[in-house]
Amino acid sequence: MRLLCSQCGQGYDAGGAPWRCGCGGPLDLDFHPEFDFRSFGGREPGLWRYREALPIEDRSSVVSLGEGGTPMVPADILGAKVHLKLEYLAPSGSFKDRGASVLISHARELGIEAAVEDSSGNAGAAISAYCAAARIACEIYVPEATSSGKTAQIEAAGARLVRVPGDREKTAEAVRKRAGEIFYASHYWNPYFFHGTKTFAYEVVEQLGGRAPDVVIFPVGHGSLLYGSYIGFRELQANEVIGAMPALIAVQAEGFAPLSYLWRGMEFPGSADKAGTVAEGIRVRKPARAGQIIRAVEETGGEVVEIGDDEIAAALAELAGRGFFVEPTSAVPLAALGKLGLGEGEIVIPLTGSGLKASLDVSRLVCRGKK
Amino acid sequence: MRLLCSQCGQGYDAGGAPWRCGCGGPLDLDFHPEFDFRSFGGREPGLWRYREALPIEDRSSVVSLGEGGTPMVPADILGAKVHLKLEYLAPSGSFKDRGASVLISHARELGIEAAVEDSSGNAGAAISAYCAAARIACEIYVPEATSSGKTAQIEAAGARLVRVPGDREKTAEAVRKRAGEIFYASHYWNPYFFHGTKTFAYEVVEQLGGRAPDVVIFPVGHGSLLYGSYIGFRELQANEVIGAMPALIAVQAEGFAPLSYLWRGMEFPGSADKAGTVAEGIRVRKPARAGQIIRAVEETGGEVVEIGDDEIAAALAELAGRGFFVEPTSAVPLAALGKLGLGEGEIVIPLTGSGLKASLDVSRLVCRGKK
Repeated sequence: MRLLCSQCGQGYDAGGAPWRCGCGGPLDLDFHPEFDFRSFGGREPGLWRYREALPIEDRSSVVSLGEGGTPMVPADILGAKVHLKLEYLAPSGSFKDRGASVLISHARELGIEAAVEDSSGNAGAAISAYCAAARIACEIYVPEATSSGKTAQIEAAGARLVRVPGDREKTAEAVRKRAGEIFYASHYWNPYFFHGTKTFAYEVVEQLGGRAPDVVIFPVGHGSLLYGSYIGFRELQANEVIGAMPALIAVQAEGFAPLSYLWRGMEFPGSADKAGTVAEGIRVRKPARAGQIIRAVEETGGEVVEIGDDEIAAALAELAGRGFFVEPTSAVPLAALGKLGLGEGEIVIPLTGSGLKASLDVSRLVCRGKK
Repeated sequence: MRLLCSQCGQGYDAGGAPWRCGCGGPLDLDFHPEFDFRSFGGREPGLWRYREALPIEDRSSVVSLGEGGTPMVPADILGAKVHLKLEYLAPSGSFKDRGASVLISHARELGIEAAVEDSSGNAGAAISAYCAAARIACEIYVPEATSSGKTAQIEAAGARLVRVPGDREKTAEAVRKRAGEIFYASHYWNPYFFHGTKTFAYEVVEQLGGRAPDVVIFPVGHGSLLYGSYIGFRELQANEVIGAMPALIAVQAEGFAPLSYLWRGMEFPGSADKAGTVAEGIRVRKPARAGQIIRAVEETGGEVVEIGDDEIAAALAELAGRGFFVEPTSAVPLAALGKLGLGEGEIVIPLTGSGLKASLDVSRLVCRGKK
């Protein structure tokens, strides 16, 4: 397997590839699977039913905890007919398990014995769980101030928690240093992760009876689900499973909206707002794959929109009031629905993460959203 | 549809049935579905693929949030080969969603507008979520001292939380009074609940390629999964899908083991231990269907065993260390494995609920279990 730099085109072998290109650009996989989509149909549900489309050659390396195969539930909501795809019904509680399953399978294929990742949220939970399943030693770097409520799941999986003094930028610096020493299981730099999240697109198309939806609306921080889905839909198009690409819409949170600025041709000023958005999962100011995400949105006729906390709270209350107990970030696409002025098309919205990871916060926000 | 008392045989119409028989006995459904098991195979995963086997006549009454269709993952664990069925990958985070989906669909079929339930745990979360989806007003009775962490999910679903002064017995009294006024959506008295949980058995048999396992090991409090599965396996046997019944093994926690005493022909003395077991989900001292559970275990060649907190902690650590972040109650069957002296047979263990409902407690217990 070859990796290619998305900026300068430099090639690397998967075995010895760095975590990013020497030029600083993110790497992509030079992998273009060919398959008969109908052959997937008779298999067990789950991510690995698409094995011919996944970049893992040695079947015995597969690390699976039962990820994928999430339900898609139709709903009449805020005046639109949407399909809610319940990505929070995943072993560690979020869609990130798709990426972790493929990335850690790749790590096992390489014979990796220790890996590092920087996330106290869904990505950290997913990477630590799959490393545990694979018996790969795992280090998770987090800012010193991270609460024990957020790290409990990671520690239970046996990962070594490295608390870095200072702010997030210090943690990022520390992990980049460590990434020079052991395998960096990054959910935004490593392209194998995106070849896990791409199965979201495969499932959506299967669940719609072999058709693509018209629109998919994503909460976007590093874009691991949006860009992964872009890869997936493109592969389905190349294999003539679907015709036109669905419009991929990226929703960002106010104060953390670098892509929204980029989309409008402006420079992101950062934000002085210390409180940050309630959508913790997308508190990202420097997405590694900004250019690729913008191109995916542009090519598919999507757009980038920005929403505030009050809109997120209202959407979260709407979901909870229908029995969907999700994290605030999962309410972000629904919060944007009113701003988008979509027509009659088929709309898919992923519910990305479980509300159980922060029950009290969700409950308080739902209460605020009802007002 | 008719309901029959499991003790005295008295019959009731489903529409006007009380929550238990006048004689005090729990009611069963007089429902014996006939179906072609193979016809389920081509359908979407999930509980409602078994619709011909479910006691809901009006399809438009179905209340579904994407429950069922949980993965079953093979594992070599503590010296045994087992199949772990990930029941915590459910909309509200536990297997109780199976029961709630069928019970609340029934409530909608009856035109019910308000329901009551008594549980601050998984059952309360499930019933409140499905009532929200069905637009049925919901009241959840809990003891006054219940922490807000446990009630957050219930409140987010819009249920009215009724905090009853005094201990659990006072809450039980209060809900029995209320049950005379509005629909009692009980996860242990109402037989429709068990016709939801029975789909666990259907899925296990499908996932094993049309065979029954040799043994299924359950954590048992009120026995809603064990007794539901008993119904399910019996129906599969009556329809000649499986031959022999699997042995159903009930595992109880020390201090909360009335069935274990009954099994040995002794009277349960209760317990002076105020701390209780760490397996919160099975802290039950008076199971409503004790006789039925004991008969199910006996008929299938199973047994009832009792385990302590240290064994639960060790099993929980074992699961977490493999990436399965579950509630302590989910570790109960695995904790019993060593005591059972099972042979080479095919063993299924349900992982009943998500660890995310009490992350810090799980993390602490995993730490204790590693010692």
